Amino acid sequence: MSTPILFWLVPFASLVALFFAWYFFRGMMRQSEGTERMQQIAAHVRAGAMAYLRQQYKVVAIVFLLLALFFAFLAYGLGVQNNWVPFAFLTGGLFSGLAGYIGMRTATYASARTAHAAGQSLNSGLRVAFRSGAVMGLVVVGLGLLDISVWYLVLNHFVEGVTDSQKLMIITTTMLTFGMGASTQALFARVGGGIYTKAADVGADLVGKVEAGIPEDDPRNPATIADNVGDNVGDVAGMGADLYESYCGSILATAALGAAAFAGDMQLKAVLAPMLIAAVGILLSVIGIFLVRTKEGANMKQLLSALGLGVNVSAVLIAVLTFVILYTLQLDNWVGISFSVIVGLLAGIIIGQSTEYYTSHSYKPTKRIAQSAETGPATVIISGIGMGMISTAIPVLTISAAIILAYLCAIGFDFAHMLTAASLSQGLYGIGIAAVGMLSTLGITLATDAYGPIADNAGGNAEMSGLDPEVRKRTDALDALGNTTAATGKGFAIGSAALTALALLASYIEEVKIGLLHIGETSITLSNGTVKAITDANILDFVDYYHISMMNPNVLIGVFIGSMMAFLFCGLTMNAVGRAAQSMVEEVRRQFREIKGILEGKATPDYARCVEISTKGAQREMLLPSILAIVAPVLTGFIFGVAGVMGLLVGGLGAGFVLAIFMANSGGAWDNAKKFIEEGNHGGKGSECHKATVVGDTVGDPFKDTAGPSLNILIKLMSMVSIVVAGLTVAYSLM
Amino acid sequence: MSTPILFWLVPFASLVALFFAWYFFRGMMRQSEGTERMQQIAAHVRAGAMAYLRQQYKVVAIVFLLLALFFAFLAYGLGVQNNWVPFAFLTGGLFSGLAGYIGMRTATYASARTAHAAGQSLNSGLRVAFRSGAVMGLVVVGLGLLDISVWYLVLNHFVEGVTDSQKLMIITTTMLTFGMGASTQALFARVGGGIYTKAADVGADLVGKVEAGIPEDDPRNPATIADNVGDNVGDVAGMGADLYESYCGSILATAALGAAAFAGDMQLKAVLAPMLIAAVGILLSVIGIFLVRTKEGANMKQLLSALGLGVNVSAVLIAVLTFVILYTLQLDNWVGISFSVIVGLLAGIIIGQSTEYYTSHSYKPTKRIAQSAETGPATVIISGIGMGMISTAIPVLTISAAIILAYLCAIGFDFAHMLTAASLSQGLYGIGIAAVGMLSTLGITLATDAYGPIADNAGGNAEMSGLDPEVRKRTDALDALGNTTAATGKGFAIGSAALTALALLASYIEEVKIGLLHIGETSITLSNGTVKAITDANILDFVDYYHISMMNPNVLIGVFIGSMMAFLFCGLTMNAVGRAAQSMVEEVRRQFREIKGILEGKATPDYARCVEISTKGAQREMLLPSILAIVAPVLTGFIFGVAGVMGLLVGGLGAGFVLAIFMANSGGAWDNAKKFIEEGNHGGKGSECHKATVVGDTVGDPFKDTAGPSLNILIKLMSMVSIVVAGLTVAYSLM
Repeated sequence: MSTPILFWLVPFASLVALFFAWYFFRGMMRQSEGTERMQQIAAHVRAGAMAYLRQQYKVVAIVFLLLALFFAFLAYGLGVQNNWVPFAFLTGGLFSGLAGYIGMRTATYASARTAHAAGQSLNSGLRVAFRSGAVMGLVVVGLGLLDISVWYLVLNHFVEGVTDSQKLMIITTTMLTFGMGASTQALFARVGGGIYTKAADVGADLVGKVEAGIPEDDPRNPATIADNVGDNVGDVAGMGADLYESYCGSILATAALGAAAFAGDMQLKAVLAPMLIAAVGILLSVIGIFLVRTKEGANMKQLLSALGLGVNVSAVLIAVLTFVILYTLQLDNWVGISFSVIVGLLAGIIIGQSTEYYTSHSYKPTKRIAQSAETGPATVIISGIGMGMISTAIPVLTISAAIILAYLCAIGFDFAHMLTAASLSQGLYGIGIAAVGMLSTLGITLATDAYGPIADNAGGNAEMSGLDPEVRKRTDALDALGNTTAATGKGFAIGSAALTALALLASYIEEVKIGLLHIGETSITLSNGTVKAITDANILDFVDYYHISMMNPNVLIGVFIGSMMAFLFCGLTMNAVGRAAQSMVEEVRRQFREIKGILEGKATPDYARCVEISTKGAQREMLLPSILAIVAPVLTGFIFGVAGVMGLLVGGLGAGFVLAIFMANSGGAWDNAKKFIEEGNHGGKGSECHKATVVGDTVGDPFKDTAGPSLNILIKLMSMVSIVVAGLTVAYSLM
Repeated sequence: MSTPILFWLVPFASLVALFFAWYFFRGMMRQSEGTERMQQIAAHVRAGAMAYLRQQYKVVAIVFLLLALFFAFLAYGLGVQNNWVPFAFLTGGLFSGLAGYIGMRTATYASARTAHAAGQSLNSGLRVAFRSGAVMGLVVVGLGLLDISVWYLVLNHFVEGVTDSQKLMIITTTMLTFGMGASTQALFARVGGGIYTKAADVGADLVGKVEAGIPEDDPRNPATIADNVGDNVGDVAGMGADLYESYCGSILATAALGAAAFAGDMQLKAVLAPMLIAAVGILLSVIGIFLVRTKEGANMKQLLSALGLGVNVSAVLIAVLTFVILYTLQLDNWVGISFSVIVGLLAGIIIGQSTEYYTSHSYKPTKRIAQSAETGPATVIISGIGMGMISTAIPVLTISAAIILAYLCAIGFDFAHMLTAASLSQGLYGIGIAAVGMLSTLGITLATDAYGPIADNAGGNAEMSGLDPEVRKRTDALDALGNTTAATGKGFAIGSAALTALALLASYIEEVKIGLLHIGETSITLSNGTVKAITDANILDFVDYYHISMMNPNVLIGVFIGSMMAFLFCGLTMNAVGRAAQSMVEEVRRQFREIKGILEGKATPDYARCVEISTKGAQREMLLPSILAIVAPVLTGFIFGVAGVMGLLVGGLGAGFVLAIFMANSGGAWDNAKKFIEEGNHGGKGSECHKATVVGDTVGDPFKDTAGPSLNILIKLMSMVSIVVAGLTVAYSLM
């Protein structure tokens, strides 16, 4: 199968991304890191973060090795998978880890430099922080497309002895395994990092702010370095691995659907389409990043519009260029499919707007939570949970509308044949490519997301180094600015997760088909008695063969277990944060008690001990929930078969998506309700109302930064695992 | 169609239940109501409760009238429903309301009498409280079977011109409409009552306990009467309407499935089987209630075993007698189906045990929440939510096992034909009858549940009347005793809700079939081109015709919306409690400020004003969530068709079931963590730890008494609504 010339745009774009990542990194490193004290603190944080990541990668490496051995057994031992799977899995994990590592290393170098630059002007601070965030954005998309390009070329070269059509199926489904590697890495990074950061944050707040009454990031607080390390390992490294997974996952799932949905010439085109949209998205992201520049002495509003300009220009251009790409490819129904991409983009924007409405203290919902602080912490929690649950309505209705519209656009609104096998495949392809559209400009949207924690850390550095309070004010402003743009980013991340997970359902059926062939089955008997060769069978034949309907008790049990998995997973991570935070609180209390003179600033606290407690807590606690996510689909498949797995995935997707939005929004709203009071409302800082919202904020921490974002990955990881072990399921299931 | 002699056992049992309800009521009324002060207080509470119920029934009556008109339009106008539907709907609502009303009236007469009796001995207190609880238990089951018997006889008499088989289908599906009436009434009772009781409770606690530092039920607290009224309207009237709905719903759903699953002679037997099991269950419940008696001077342990004896003997006997009933009926595979009933009973017990483990402070999970109070309210909330989410695993796995076992027992473990149309119908019948088994001894389990609030109110009465603290101690002991037995009751309620909802899915398909016939369709075209007469079509044909698979985007959208509905509904009710509680807090604060001498006991607070605030708050806030639950299935059906509705029901069931367990268990655990500290652990009453757990308990109040229990009803109401408007959906849907 010859590689079309247009394909080379994909590796080219990935190299462009990596080049500019290096370029922005170099530029940042040339900036001054400020006073010796600032450098020291940054070095402490960097050392803690790197130590954590090394520790985490050690644990994850063992898990990866075991899983790779298991997949090798499936492939070489049982013959229910192809031989490339263990390697694809490993590279996915490796590249995802690498993206997190580089992003975090950059962030730890950038914090003191951002603080120093913010000392000169708001604008300089923005520039350093944003371009450092862009390093992460570009590394994620660059490494993603690089891995995809290389695997495509390798498999295209080595897979032999099959038709071109079969070859494309093998290539795309093998590449999905590398998605599973990325998902596994992402889950560990999110869960481990999330537990670390929130244990440190909650611990630092509970004793420092509430009990001792010292401000955030005060150097007298023994947990303060751990807290800053946490921002890096959770919000930067964790987010990097997470979005690497989302980005690759949406492209790979859509490519796999493309191979299944189209035939002949169109097949290769449909596989390339998502990659090309992503490649062009990278080029537009780089342009967008360069557009983010303001005059010296710009005010907040100008900064915000500068950021907005970059993001919006890239989004509008990708919408337009999608038509050009698909027209150039001459993909069947290129107009309709392009509209599917637009639907995805719009849905992402609406979800982002709704996130902002429900979590920003410029709007009623968060103001109401702040107001409920008048009657104490209990009503803050009740109203925050109530509001978070209500806030799920708009995103769910939006994604529902996006699903049906992306589907209908992709099948050209052919209502009469809406649910034929061919329409189903193409419609699901439309849903997948809508997710690709949402994430196509990830290079720049992730930059606006990742620069938040950098600004946050710069603030910590400024506080601990005893810089002019004006600097801290500026970094806070940058942080607040980041929160607004990050809302949109979150909308895209969560929306794309839901759409990608839907696309993976169809990929699962395809993998079941391949699994049946692998174990030597040649035909299936349909419910009306027809015998059909597996190679001829379509998606609906497998639905029929496995009774994948809402009346099959195995499907219904799967839905129950899937819904439960989302809650169980959240519960385990919440408890992990609670436990780790409690050890942190006890340690900080011990230091206050035993090391005389800390609170008067005469003695140095033992920062390292706190870093160690968070590290150990995170490592110990991340294993169970993560392994559960891997084991559940395997066990469900073994007992309840393909139908049970479909139920599990759909139940997990439904409950998990809604739960994720609820937790993210409640957490965000509590955070901002506290900020609203700190701005002087309802009595301001130190008032009873403020204390009540600090309780809300503390509860919200694991909601929005540990459990909530991990759910996005859980949903997809369960699908990925199901896909990879589909061969095992069809061969050895009980029912 | 002649009525078999065995049928008459059903109305007979219902009259037995009503007779003994009257007998126990009379016995209770003969007891002394104590001092004048006690009578006064009881009269206040009674007046408040009755005033509330009158107000609530007025609002609900309007909703019922509008809905009945709508159904009349469906039946007489559009011809997409049969003519009995509006009337069946109304009687369901009427009887459900009546059960709640009688139960509550009894409870308000019983509270002072229980307090007075507890003044004599613990045993006398138990006797009065438990037998008053039994009034409610027996009224619920008695009225339930009475309504079922009467409708069966009426429809059997009047439906003419069809075959016996068709007649049974019409009878059973019409009777399901009366289930919808019961569900609607139950939802309003639970939501309205839940908002009332928790607004009063939270309001009373926040200002009374936390701010003013006066004990629970102190007469100086202006919200204290409202709080006691709340226990009656929420925990008694709400619970009565709720379980009336569960009880009738499980019997009617199973009867409808029986009519669909069996043919010939067996059809009528399958319809009667659930009614007969319920009838025998009533007789056993009465026996069980009489077994609850101890010697004078019995200690707590003896009391607990006396209660346990009654409940356990009824449960064991119904397990045994089920075999006898089904053998006597000579139902096909009577052994297997009897085992389905046993599976249901066992699942209920396991879920109950798991509820107790996760919520009682004799076990680790709740102790850990209490321990987390050492680090303040935030960690109490985090660990409570974490624990609640984890606690969903056992019930979900139990119900999953119950589903597959009840299904397999009912089809005689015929794995080879596990998913044929015939097996599906019979297997689902097995699942339905497992739910009937779970609820068969509701007469006594509800008695142990309902006596808790009575003991609670007795305690309130003792406190306000200034009785010897020893009396309060005894009523507290009775209350604690009730909590233990109530855990099992809750397990049965929630387990049966999940199983009944599954059975209703199959009834929905049956109703779709009838709906198609109603609008004059005679055949459907299957996906392989076969044309099948609708009368010959089976459940799988409709699954195929409507593409009810996990790959249909309409189904997936339905799942998303269903999951979201559970959260949205909870969020609305949580917020409603928060808002209503806030008005209560402000009112209590105002009274403390403006009416001089309240806190010194020199002036009487304005109790009536607080009662009014709770009443208005509840009435205002209950409408939106309740109406949403009715509108969602109608709109989903209109836009996304039958497939969308199936997705909605399954998604709502999956997420709603898990969410309900989470909320109930978190709430229960917080409550008991507080009690654990009040027993002197972690610093005891008044310590910082105690204050932290009071926050947890306050958050838990709407979790466990408003949102959580309402979800059970929501799940079934959405199914019932879908069933009733199925004709509309098949005739006028967009997709």
